[in-house]
Amino acid sequence: MKFVKNDQTAVFALGGLGEIGKNTYAVQFQDEIILIDAGIKFPEDELLGIDYVIPDYTYIVQNQDKIKGLFVTHGHEDHIGGIPYLLREVNVPIYAGPLAIGLIRNKLDEHGLLRSAKLTTIQEDDVIKFRKTSVSFFRTTHSIPDSYGIVVKTPPGNIVHTGDFKFDFTPVGEPANLTRMAEIGKEGVLCLLSDSTNSEVPGFTMSEKVVGQSIDEVFSRVDGRLIFATFASNIYRLQQVVESAVKYNRKVAVFGRSMENAINIGSELGYIQAPKGTFIEGNQINRYPASEITILCTGSQGETMAALSRIANGTHRQIQIIPGDTVVFSSSPIPGNTVSVSRTINKLYRAGADVIHGKLSNIHTSGHGSQEEQKLMLRLIKPKFFMPIHGEYRMLKEHIKLAETCDVDPANSFIMDNGDVLALSKDQATVSGKVPSGSIYVDGSGIGDIGNIVLRDRRILSEEGLVIVVVSINMKEFKIAAGPDIISRGFVYMRESEDLINEAQKLVSTHLDKVMDRKTTQWSEIKNEITDTIAPFLYEKTKRRPMVLPIIMEV
Amino acid sequence: MKFVKNDQTAVFALGGLGEIGKNTYAVQFQDEIILIDAGIKFPEDELLGIDYVIPDYTYIVQNQDKIKGLFVTHGHEDHIGGIPYLLREVNVPIYAGPLAIGLIRNKLDEHGLLRSAKLTTIQEDDVIKFRKTSVSFFRTTHSIPDSYGIVVKTPPGNIVHTGDFKFDFTPVGEPANLTRMAEIGKEGVLCLLSDSTNSEVPGFTMSEKVVGQSIDEVFSRVDGRLIFATFASNIYRLQQVVESAVKYNRKVAVFGRSMENAINIGSELGYIQAPKGTFIEGNQINRYPASEITILCTGSQGETMAALSRIANGTHRQIQIIPGDTVVFSSSPIPGNTVSVSRTINKLYRAGADVIHGKLSNIHTSGHGSQEEQKLMLRLIKPKFFMPIHGEYRMLKEHIKLAETCDVDPANSFIMDNGDVLALSKDQATVSGKVPSGSIYVDGSGIGDIGNIVLRDRRILSEEGLVIVVVSINMKEFKIAAGPDIISRGFVYMRESEDLINEAQKLVSTHLDKVMDRKTTQWSEIKNEITDTIAPFLYEKTKRRPMVLPIIMEV
Repeated sequence: MKFVKNDQTAVFALGGLGEIGKNTYAVQFQDEIILIDAGIKFPEDELLGIDYVIPDYTYIVQNQDKIKGLFVTHGHEDHIGGIPYLLREVNVPIYAGPLAIGLIRNKLDEHGLLRSAKLTTIQEDDVIKFRKTSVSFFRTTHSIPDSYGIVVKTPPGNIVHTGDFKFDFTPVGEPANLTRMAEIGKEGVLCLLSDSTNSEVPGFTMSEKVVGQSIDEVFSRVDGRLIFATFASNIYRLQQVVESAVKYNRKVAVFGRSMENAINIGSELGYIQAPKGTFIEGNQINRYPASEITILCTGSQGETMAALSRIANGTHRQIQIIPGDTVVFSSSPIPGNTVSVSRTINKLYRAGADVIHGKLSNIHTSGHGSQEEQKLMLRLIKPKFFMPIHGEYRMLKEHIKLAETCDVDPANSFIMDNGDVLALSKDQATVSGKVPSGSIYVDGSGIGDIGNIVLRDRRILSEEGLVIVVVSINMKEFKIAAGPDIISRGFVYMRESEDLINEAQKLVSTHLDKVMDRKTTQWSEIKNEITDTIAPFLYEKTKRRPMVLPIIMEV
Repeated sequence: MKFVKNDQTAVFALGGLGEIGKNTYAVQFQDEIILIDAGIKFPEDELLGIDYVIPDYTYIVQNQDKIKGLFVTHGHEDHIGGIPYLLREVNVPIYAGPLAIGLIRNKLDEHGLLRSAKLTTIQEDDVIKFRKTSVSFFRTTHSIPDSYGIVVKTPPGNIVHTGDFKFDFTPVGEPANLTRMAEIGKEGVLCLLSDSTNSEVPGFTMSEKVVGQSIDEVFSRVDGRLIFATFASNIYRLQQVVESAVKYNRKVAVFGRSMENAINIGSELGYIQAPKGTFIEGNQINRYPASEITILCTGSQGETMAALSRIANGTHRQIQIIPGDTVVFSSSPIPGNTVSVSRTINKLYRAGADVIHGKLSNIHTSGHGSQEEQKLMLRLIKPKFFMPIHGEYRMLKEHIKLAETCDVDPANSFIMDNGDVLALSKDQATVSGKVPSGSIYVDGSGIGDIGNIVLRDRRILSEEGLVIVVVSINMKEFKIAAGPDIISRGFVYMRESEDLINEAQKLVSTHLDKVMDRKTTQWSEIKNEITDTIAPFLYEKTKRRPMVLPIIMEV
């Protein structure tokens, strides 16, 4: 890295700064690169038709000989979803905790990449040593088991990456390893990269155990069927539901592929524990009285194809809402999904179910620490330099302010963009250059083949529709051989707009007659003229600006 | 109305039940129909390219001889936005408070309908009498001045419509007329239609005066320019900003057309009061030091074309963010706008501004009453029958539960859909039939010409794009005269996908050669065959399903 000195450690992100998603970070000392996480991002609304967004992996490909490994903090999609795309470029060794390894394995299997992948399961005490650097771990609490923070030891100093975290002092599962964090802090930390998601939220995030009490309370008072929707990866939550089900003598049926996956992996790893016979098959639910049924399903974000949406729409093959059903959203809608979640809730109510949702019922808690927890991390790790990560700009900014209250000099804090390289020596840090970074769109099987032009076309088509003008021209005689025909899609309902279309056709026809007299074959010019003739006419008549697509065929 | 008896009063909605928006209600006794409000709804995301949604006015048109008037509760778009579309169908007389009349006047002027409109400004004490029914008013508090509830007296009993309301005991402007509401309740109310927007929110909505204190606090501590974004129609809020500006010796510049409108109308009506010289023109802001400038602008919902978005994007002609600027979002994002608001906040931070937003800063309050206020309304009005209005199904449902706690028998509460008619006699209420109702889409100058087919096409085009296959066929010789050509938009970037396109072209070509041998002119069949040939091929290659549009020209 030409803009980083030989005695400096470079820290940068290919994704995860100024955004929620596609977390992909790197720590580089000389010829050793430690990658941390390889996530995807779910596209925002204006990325029409795009399935996922991944980072630009150019830097990784160009420096593949230096990559020592990809270290995964935990198994959420925004931290592991990019792995299949990364491995297609560079088959880096992957180190992750047990659950993350299970989820990565599933994912690579689907992509046909499992056989060649180099996967290593790590435990908290492991230290992975390379020639100049080494990597160790500390257990954190988050909304998925086996979440770790990562310490990269480099000659100029130690770099700490928190992963996603909260400080749940009464978690389901293991508590965060405060002792180790204190030791890491005591040993000295050159730079801390810390999760900024909830930096605008004051106070302390509610414990998962409180959610467990709310779940238990629901079980204690509801007689009918209980339908629980939550994130499949929140295996602690699933276990709490299962425990209450057992306590109140209910069976558990699981719906939705990711939920079935989670229950399977969770059971294998011992996170899901239930007496034999607790789980029943989906087709068995009608054999039990309503009061003995719990349904665990996907769809807590109102996703169109998920089990809960199909239940709400009345299109689920096995579950119809019956009076007495209670649906629990053990989740909170992420910003882009508020409307679809609300719609699902309305449909469930209309179908006759009772619905429990929202903050007031304490039926969900965030996996990310609030301001006091972010401060606790800063006080434990006591970094010299600080880089807030994983969050929109506003959150990074707020995190810097919090760090200042914990004695981190704002001059030592860096709000960076993806690609920006922070060059760290023992006592100095500077943003010293930029590596290639950006967003690559995945649509169907295409990776990066959808660019701004295609997206712009999709946007115009989606809002205004399309008008095609097609004409065949006899080139020998400079005569129109057929057409002009006008075809539209997404513009007006053709059958009810015959007059408009006929008028437009005449207009083009008249213009083309003149063009034929010119005996020209400047097709692109003629096409522009067709557009210039018809577009203002259509705008005047409809106040819409459809895409106009003139097609000329020479016969 | 054949399904309502001669001694019954019919109450129904053409819009506003099970949704937020297009509020349009009707009270009918025999041949007298009182309309209440005529709103629009802003389209949800899947209504691609649609500008507004209005109700189906069929019932109004069919019964225009019976319409006594349209009574407007207040001047928000979801209560007055439909008026131009309604007046084009039936020129009903309109009664509204002073501010609403001002806003309606503007709107009708833009639509060229002002001259023929019959507008009457009402005051709280007015009673509008018809032969069998009469209409009177009671002042409420809401986020816009001149908000009224409406009482329709009919022989079977009085029907009360709250409009939108909160109970602000320390409002800016006049307080709600509790005395009159109590009198109305004492006189006896057959049916109450009450605003359900905040029925899921416990407690009591914060007073506008508290917001005023927060605004003042911001003015007291900020030295740089202050940029306030809020809803233009919240004239009380604007006045509070103006008052603080005067107090702290700042000028006020107004940006955004609706904001300028609001300040003008508000000043005319005396709701906006400021010493001479307080307001300055937009082009004068650079003549004053930053500490003497307040900017009032539109765009608090992140709307793309509004002043604040252009400021955030750096594309505003007169305002560039400078260090020291503080932007205040005196608003909260409505559910569909969370992402765009967040994006605007990020851009403002990046541009160097400080940003104040969110619940914690008490810089905004809802215009709708929370649960305790909805109960207060129920206790004052003491209706025999109850119909929650203005809200999604979940909110209507919750409002019924609240009514039950206030001694309204759930058997006397009705969750209705748009079009459902509640037939009320002195002591009975039944949902007795349905009038035409539905959603009409407004796109550009087209009203109702966009239907489900066009929307379905827009959706496919937006997500998958389009592939056009065009071929000219010589009909005398059953030979291909030109093509097949393949053109795509929104599918793949054509220049980088030549191989794919060429291969698809060959496929179609081979198929068409066979078709020519058949010497058939079954064009629709041939078109289907082209689609069936190319669609699976494209899916296999790209895992996308673009719309395929075969065009055959006979030459």
